[in-house]
Amino acid sequence: MLLIINSLKAQDINDNKQQNMTTINNKGTRAPQEYFTGTVWVNMNVKAEDSYNTLIGTVTFEPKGRTNWHTHTTGQILLVTDGIGYYQEKGKPIQLIRKGDVVKIPKNVEHWHGASLNSSMTHIAIVPELDKDKTEWLAPVTDEEYNSFK
Amino acid sequence: MLLIINSLKAQDINDNKQQNMTTINNKGTRAPQEYFTGTVWVNMNVKAEDSYNTLIGTVTFEPKGRTNWHTHTTGQILLVTDGIGYYQEKGKPIQLIRKGDVVKIPKNVEHWHGASLNSSMTHIAIVPELDKDKTEWLAPVTDEEYNSFK
Repeated sequence: MLLIINSLKAQDINDNKQQNMTTINNKGTRAPQEYFTGTVWVNMNVKAEDSYNTLIGTVTFEPKGRTNWHTHTTGQILLVTDGIGYYQEKGKPIQLIRKGDVVKIPKNVEHWHGASLNSSMTHIAIVPELDKDKTEWLAPVTDEEYNSFK
Repeated sequence: MLLIINSLKAQDINDNKQQNMTTINNKGTRAPQEYFTGTVWVNMNVKAEDSYNTLIGTVTFEPKGRTNWHTHTTGQILLVTDGIGYYQEKGKPIQLIRKGDVVKIPKNVEHWHGASLNSSMTHIAIVPELDKDKTEWLAPVTDEEYNSFK
């Protein structure tokens, strides 16, 4: 059933879609190596110019792919839509995150997120209050840190 | 594989989750009949008291289930996570929306959304700028309006 819907979708995507619609069924472009380790894809679904004062992006991490350590002044919400991944706040153990999980990242807390060792992970990331947000990118997550998951 | 993950999830949900985590794998409670037609479920993932100045909820519409006509002063973003549904802005034809679609609802535009005739539909709904939002609930979508999809 899903295969049928997806093939219909591919046919219809150009004639059925209006200006107000886009898709999360697209892994987008490679995330900048400056802030990510491994293979990570970003599809920006809601951009600054959409004027909602929020950013929404779908991020796909291939196994071992992850963000650098970073902070957000307004926090961030992750909605895991596929796979199995990791989320860690500085000074705490890595948490396993799975399809369906919602992670509420606190304001100004240093953290990282990514795929697990053997599974990719896709999440929607929501930056609230874009006008007040500052994201600070910090050091890459080392292999030792990444492999500390128990 | 997904079945395995889901059964693991059910076991782990109480011991693995921390305060900062919740789930979209839960259809929540019945939506108020005052503003919805048919059977609709709402799971609020990010609430006002979470202090992100945004609301995020997962809404599941059973076939024929739909919102009333309504408006949002700050607009709304829908991310369709399952099924096939309808979206309509006043004065325009009904648009089909499917798993993966992102709908950017313009500010102050009268509209409704819901399941299609024979399929349920689940979407994540994001209210940006909660402090500035006013949602105005209007008339139910009549069967004649609902059945106008071609």
